[in-house]
Amino acid sequence: MRAAIIGGGVIGAGWAARFLLNGWDVTVFDPGVDTRRRVEEVIDNARRSLPALYDRSLPGEGALIWCDSVAAAAVAADWIQESVPERLEAKRAVLGEAQRHAPGGAVLASSTSGFKPSDLQCGARRPGQILVCHPFNPVYLLPLVEVVPSPATDPSILDRSIALLEAVGMRPLPIRKEIDAHVADRLLEAAWREALWLVRDGIATTAEIDEAIRCGFGLRWAQMGLFETYRIAGGEAGMRHFIAQFGPALQWNWSRLTDVPELTDDLIDRIAEQSDRQTGARDVRRLERLRDDNLVAILRALKSNDHGAGRTVAAHERSLPDAGAGAGPLPVTVSRQVPRSWTDYNGHVNESHYLELFAQATDRTMELIGAGADYVAAGKSYFTVESHLRHLDEVRGGERIRVTTQLLAGGRLPAGDGRKLHLFHRLERGAGRLAATGEHLLLHVDLKTRRSCPPDARVAARLERLLARHAALPRPEGAGRFVAQRAAHEREPARADPPPASAG
Amino acid sequence: MRAAIIGGGVIGAGWAARFLLNGWDVTVFDPGVDTRRRVEEVIDNARRSLPALYDRSLPGEGALIWCDSVAAAAVAADWIQESVPERLEAKRAVLGEAQRHAPGGAVLASSTSGFKPSDLQCGARRPGQILVCHPFNPVYLLPLVEVVPSPATDPSILDRSIALLEAVGMRPLPIRKEIDAHVADRLLEAAWREALWLVRDGIATTAEIDEAIRCGFGLRWAQMGLFETYRIAGGEAGMRHFIAQFGPALQWNWSRLTDVPELTDDLIDRIAEQSDRQTGARDVRRLERLRDDNLVAILRALKSNDHGAGRTVAAHERSLPDAGAGAGPLPVTVSRQVPRSWTDYNGHVNESHYLELFAQATDRTMELIGAGADYVAAGKSYFTVESHLRHLDEVRGGERIRVTTQLLAGGRLPAGDGRKLHLFHRLERGAGRLAATGEHLLLHVDLKTRRSCPPDARVAARLERLLARHAALPRPEGAGRFVAQRAAHEREPARADPPPASAG
Repeated sequence: MRAAIIGGGVIGAGWAARFLLNGWDVTVFDPGVDTRRRVEEVIDNARRSLPALYDRSLPGEGALIWCDSVAAAAVAADWIQESVPERLEAKRAVLGEAQRHAPGGAVLASSTSGFKPSDLQCGARRPGQILVCHPFNPVYLLPLVEVVPSPATDPSILDRSIALLEAVGMRPLPIRKEIDAHVADRLLEAAWREALWLVRDGIATTAEIDEAIRCGFGLRWAQMGLFETYRIAGGEAGMRHFIAQFGPALQWNWSRLTDVPELTDDLIDRIAEQSDRQTGARDVRRLERLRDDNLVAILRALKSNDHGAGRTVAAHERSLPDAGAGAGPLPVTVSRQVPRSWTDYNGHVNESHYLELFAQATDRTMELIGAGADYVAAGKSYFTVESHLRHLDEVRGGERIRVTTQLLAGGRLPAGDGRKLHLFHRLERGAGRLAATGEHLLLHVDLKTRRSCPPDARVAARLERLLARHAALPRPEGAGRFVAQRAAHEREPARADPPPASAG
Repeated sequence: MRAAIIGGGVIGAGWAARFLLNGWDVTVFDPGVDTRRRVEEVIDNARRSLPALYDRSLPGEGALIWCDSVAAAAVAADWIQESVPERLEAKRAVLGEAQRHAPGGAVLASSTSGFKPSDLQCGARRPGQILVCHPFNPVYLLPLVEVVPSPATDPSILDRSIALLEAVGMRPLPIRKEIDAHVADRLLEAAWREALWLVRDGIATTAEIDEAIRCGFGLRWAQMGLFETYRIAGGEAGMRHFIAQFGPALQWNWSRLTDVPELTDDLIDRIAEQSDRQTGARDVRRLERLRDDNLVAILRALKSNDHGAGRTVAAHERSLPDAGAGAGPLPVTVSRQVPRSWTDYNGHVNESHYLELFAQATDRTMELIGAGADYVAAGKSYFTVESHLRHLDEVRGGERIRVTTQLLAGGRLPAGDGRKLHLFHRLERGAGRLAATGEHLLLHVDLKTRRSCPPDARVAARLERLLARHAALPRPEGAGRFVAQRAAHEREPARADPPPASAG
């Protein structure tokens, strides 16, 4: 397949990247200076991010072909995407020229934020070939495309555009009636206008307004949007209750918006009925849990990037006490609830998260020997060389677990110069029932050379002290096992039943 | 610490949960029928979600105390949170009664969506004790609290409220000037009013509007908000360019909003200057990558829940070809790019994601023997019992990797009745360089009894065929190793240098 990109700004370049990385050949025409560098920078951004969405490979990249005219770009294209500046005459001229040279069956789409397809079609030789496909920046990552036909748009072109957009991983949303700025940009424009008032009147700065969005309703909108969120806010009484509760606010000075729709019974009925259809049979409790599972997943994702609302979560986490010393002789290196999102298709926590928990226990152990964040920042750390995990029981999402850690030394691995760290983690479910074990060998490394070296004296000394204490303890059952080794006391592999964590 | 919750609706109950799960005692007063059940349902939701945000334990839960009057709830409270319906007189009465009995130093906060603190203070005996702390539903998960003082609010009460909100993991955002509906709800109200027009005029349904938000700008707002997003849209020319580009739209019919601010030079200067301060020294390329890393993390989170925009990503992923058969004798069971967000503090992919990749390779192997999704849906699956990982080289975030898989049999583990699956995965970096190996023992289980059982005949047969083919191949180097075992040809643990994946 071949896409022609007319106009190489941020939007055009994003379209080019979206098509290219999904295996399409892409022709680009933009007379502007320096366009080529900018387009290629956007495509580089797409290369570093889009494939990371998927656990499979995208098709091989298509060819990027630079053209010196609309005609040359459009001539053999299955899809022509116009993304020139927001001036009607310019857009009409480009679409007209493209249509003169494009195959009759090609989709002729405009990225316009504001114009109606009928505005763009007027004067065209084949109006039916033209429609609006309005994407959102960054086009290579955000799925939404507003697909807006006019009454004159050929239904087969509409169907084709939807099928092809889905084929490149997007979410085409057909809009029922053409209107200036379509749907999303009308919502954005209303919020933008209100935001300008807030800045103008000194109520809030741009940074404060952004924070108010991304630490609050922005997180809701990312997963449910506006109406379903309000339906939940209505509680068990649902959408009608929400409207009854907040409908009157339409008459209050809650925004600068002065032109408000009248909440007629007819409109209330329509909203409630559409909202019922949207939500289907799910009751409010199920919706709340769906929402909460999504919010937890999003907030954890932002926490891992230490960004936005994730910064708040990360800061609060740092303020929480470390896993305690524990009653027994061994340090408790993890004590927490596991997220529900860690559950896999086998109905229990996926095996990779067991290693995530053991990695946290290893981090905590490094802190205990003085090799925590500051030590790493100073250029030294421990890397895992080898791990052995046994799954003895199933951990479910939402359960509370704890991990205790024993340093192993003597016997097959002398502590040596502290270059090697041999750990054994025990993961227990609520009732202190052993669910899994992790045995790990780590090497102390210089983060610049990426090669092993002895730890600083302070760390080596702390390590020796802890080793000495743990050496007195019995060697843990299962240490030194290899995969599929018969346990001494049985002919089956260790603890075959009750079975263990999932390969899901 | 003790919080008094006056009004047990969705918001009041959310406050109760937020304080309780952060170790506060909580008193609740609400005269309504059935309040107790509803509040406890909200607290149950919080118990299943809030702790999952953190990799550490929250403090032990406080006590939940039901009171039969405002006085009884407020008398010993450090914080009184009023969340009664949006009627000014009702709120004033509750705040007045609470103030009569609350300690003088207690924070007296209202959850009001719309009223100004000065509205609430009028007639109060100690106006300085009262301010607005406006949260967002669900209060136990969303960090944002708009903290709105009036000129009469005591600065020490303001400071105390901010410190205490941070202590329960929230993001207090002080608002500079009191105004109806504060900041976030003004933006929401503007969007809500526009959305009502769209439904009324038949442009879009509630479901389509929600989809337009959550598959598009909602994902941007969840991590950057409005102004910084537009700054990026302005490209290298930044905020001024964006305003120059889209400023004129303020005069167009892009929303029903009729009252628009004038874009004076003064306003443009203020926005550009605030935006510069907000963004600091980061250039647009860095902002784009920050944005993209957040979008990838959020979209992957939603994909794992198969919700909203994540559904689109999941559907596209399913449409992508499986890892190919591969050139060699072994099946390629994973072929992909690894996300940048998998990088840890040691500057390479965290060890838990190596097991995630091996788990994907195991899933693919299960598909190859006919034990894929349909088989699992029918009630049978394989669970991992035991794993052994070796890290031989460092994989960096963003790299392309592939995994090949060999079935092991004979020798120490006969294939037996197919109940046991013994796998050896090899993870290679781009150039075919071995980076890690995973050896795994799986047991075939009945998902109802959670106990091992023989696989269906079709699976057993396929397994035997694949085993027979792989049995001809040499046993992989490293199979059967135990942790810290000396390799035959060296005195160091296998492949100490160059070192391997991270314990981070």
